[in-house]
Amino acid sequence: MKPVSRVISLTTDFGTKDPYVGIMKGVIASINPEALVVDLTHEVRSFDLREAALVLLASYRWFPPGTVHVVVVDPGVGTARRPVLIVTRNYYFIGPDNGVLSWAARSDGVEAAYRLSNRAFMTKEVSYTFHGRDIFAPAAAWLTRGVKPEVLGEPIDPGSLEALGTLRCDSGEDYIRGSVVVVDKFGNVITSCRDSPFRPGDRVRIEAKGGVWEAVFARTFGEVPEGGLLVHINSLGFFEISVNKGSASSMTGLKPGDEVWVRKL
Amino acid sequence: MKPVSRVISLTTDFGTKDPYVGIMKGVIASINPEALVVDLTHEVRSFDLREAALVLLASYRWFPPGTVHVVVVDPGVGTARRPVLIVTRNYYFIGPDNGVLSWAARSDGVEAAYRLSNRAFMTKEVSYTFHGRDIFAPAAAWLTRGVKPEVLGEPIDPGSLEALGTLRCDSGEDYIRGSVVVVDKFGNVITSCRDSPFRPGDRVRIEAKGGVWEAVFARTFGEVPEGGLLVHINSLGFFEISVNKGSASSMTGLKPGDEVWVRKL
Amino acid sequence: MKPVSRVISLTTDFGTKDPYVGIMKGVIASINPEALVVDLTHEVRSFDLREAALVLLASYRWFPPGTVHVVVVDPGVGTARRPVLIVTRNYYFIGPDNGVLSWAARSDGVEAAYRLSNRAFMTKEVSYTFHGRDIFAPAAAWLTRGVKPEVLGEPIDPGSLEALGTLRCDSGEDYIRGSVVVVDKFGNVITSCRDSPFRPGDRVRIEAKGGVWEAVFARTFGEVPEGGLLVHINSLGFFEISVNKGSASSMTGLKPGDEVWVRKL
Repeated sequence: MKPVSRVISLTTDFGTKDPYVGIMKGVIASINPEALVVDLTHEVRSFDLREAALVLLASYRWFPPGTVHVVVVDPGVGTARRPVLIVTRNYYFIGPDNGVLSWAARSDGVEAAYRLSNRAFMTKEVSYTFHGRDIFAPAAAWLTRGVKPEVLGEPIDPGSLEALGTLRCDSGEDYIRGSVVVVDKFGNVITSCRDSPFRPGDRVRIEAKGGVWEAVFARTFGEVPEGGLLVHINSLGFFEISVNKGSASSMTGLKPGDEVWVRKL
Repeated sequence: MKPVSRVISLTTDFGTKDPYVGIMKGVIASINPEALVVDLTHEVRSFDLREAALVLLASYRWFPPGTVHVVVVDPGVGTARRPVLIVTRNYYFIGPDNGVLSWAARSDGVEAAYRLSNRAFMTKEVSYTFHGRDIFAPAAAWLTRGVKPEVLGEPIDPGSLEALGTLRCDSGEDYIRGSVVVVDKFGNVITSCRDSPFRPGDRVRIEAKGGVWEAVFARTFGEVPEGGLLVHINSLGFFEISVNKGSASSMTGLKPGDEVWVRKL
Repeated sequence: MKPVSRVISLTTDFGTKDPYVGIMKGVIASINPEALVVDLTHEVRSFDLREAALVLLASYRWFPPGTVHVVVVDPGVGTARRPVLIVTRNYYFIGPDNGVLSWAARSDGVEAAYRLSNRAFMTKEVSYTFHGRDIFAPAAAWLTRGVKPEVLGEPIDPGSLEALGTLRCDSGEDYIRGSVVVVDKFGNVITSCRDSPFRPGDRVRIEAKGGVWEAVFARTFGEVPEGGLLVHINSLGFFEISVNKGSASSMTGLKPGDEVWVRKL
């Protein structure tokens, strides 16, 4: 078994108003007080598997090898969907088998998968509606204490794991066509494209939702005036539409799901 | 003295926009860098003692024995209300003596109580408006470093502690009658009832605020169609009104304080 | 070199919806898993240097000596502005050289400054838009592992550091005149004044934005009735306008930037 770090990352749609996340951390501390829990975000839109999958894909590799990444966006909690542990080349991923782990796990290279089924490593009574507390947090904590994956559950065929449809992006010599995946806190519009044919300084035309905007392909926000529109490959590796010291989402009205077409002028 | 863990949980109405919580953590780290601080929530509605008391009641037992639970919802800060430490069967509770600790402390079994009065274990200057920083955080940190309760303050009669009115719930063979205590991030409507006479599959009628809705008593959200209303005992042990992949609060308009009557059909 | 604690505080305008802060923590854990990261706030208004500077000024001294305070409010990321480490009498400050560190650093006493330029202590590829992850978090983590400031970068003249205009406050025997710097979660209106000529019990007249209000200079909220207006020196050391169990910002309409004149009656 590859080394497990003592780091556990958490990604949920629980918000921080309610004590759900704190309770998960209490459960983890009860099992392994040496675990280091890091919040990725708890503000995934309720039940939005693609947003959570993107957060994880953009973030997982910035953690130490052996980190246990736990994702609880789980609209099917209590139904037949399986609780799973996926072992990849460098990390461990724990969550419901609804596809939310698929982008990150595949990106790192899936080596094995397990159905979390050993009741000895869950809370005494497993609820029907809070597997984050009763199954996922305990599994992560036990893993960081050295319990082996095959003890936490039985092996399953990685090919049987649910997967989300991949991020769709069509591109050519002078254009890309994709969709908005997420709008961040600054109003940056993050698309499904991970590359582009543009070069710094290129002027481009953005078409979306019946609107048209011109922008510059830049590397830094400062290359356009304040309030100016730019496009760039963002720090997470995605093609992004931004405004220098402003909100591209407010300026364009773009929202997750919208189609975007960007052409070189 | 029972063992104290190095875990400190924090529950406040401070929000996370301002540095108040971070400052409390700085004070704790200054006293005991080995303490492990876990946020339960900082988004209790300003001054809402009952919401904070419920968060604590629902959460405290998921932490390791010996955890120090600190609650700072303190509308009377700086007035005559006492800062207290309550020792229960398995935990330590620290906060203002305004009832906010009462539900959790009683639930675990109160063994002793102390008025936090030893200035040697507070910040050098104690402000009139931020006892979270100046009294409660230091007391928790010193406790996790092994300072005994009787050194932090003088014993007081547990019977003299303030208590909130208990969660009121009336129930019979085919009904419950309670009130909404909190609405969570998903729009789940959590009531004051901790049990019910219903069985999985029962159809029920919800009456509240002049409205009437039908729902199913279920164990999992997936037992009703998307957008369908269900009632269930939630993972925290409370009777809850929910919508599968939706918001019961939005659908019904129910808010904290509203009376709810649920009858078997 | 003065001792470095293992504590790192983080202040950003990143929000908590996106994984940016979590990624910074992943990078820190990759370099020094023993570091203790404390969030001051991530909800600084986007690009608001003065708000971030005030948060830091109000908070830094509540942390253990040797704490590394990291601030990432960085509208000029990727442009010519320098990434810097400032060593003060008791602390380390890391962030962009745009003035955001200036109030706190000067308050503690600047001893030395460095431009963070050693690529060996950054992420392998440094992005143009996320120096929090690629430069600032790594520098803080390496510092807590014992790497010396002069290894992280070259010394620069502290006199060359950018500084924000100081907090302006004019005061006399019976008045103060300043501006609103921040409104906190409770609606408390925090001004640029750090002292006042008033004594507990004094009645004062507040003039601002064409409105006039009367208030009492008090030490605790409880000295005025619920809903009543008071002014006081808050727990962070600033002159503040508050309402007992209410929002002074809602009552007065005051917002950051507004001029405020308070006179003794």
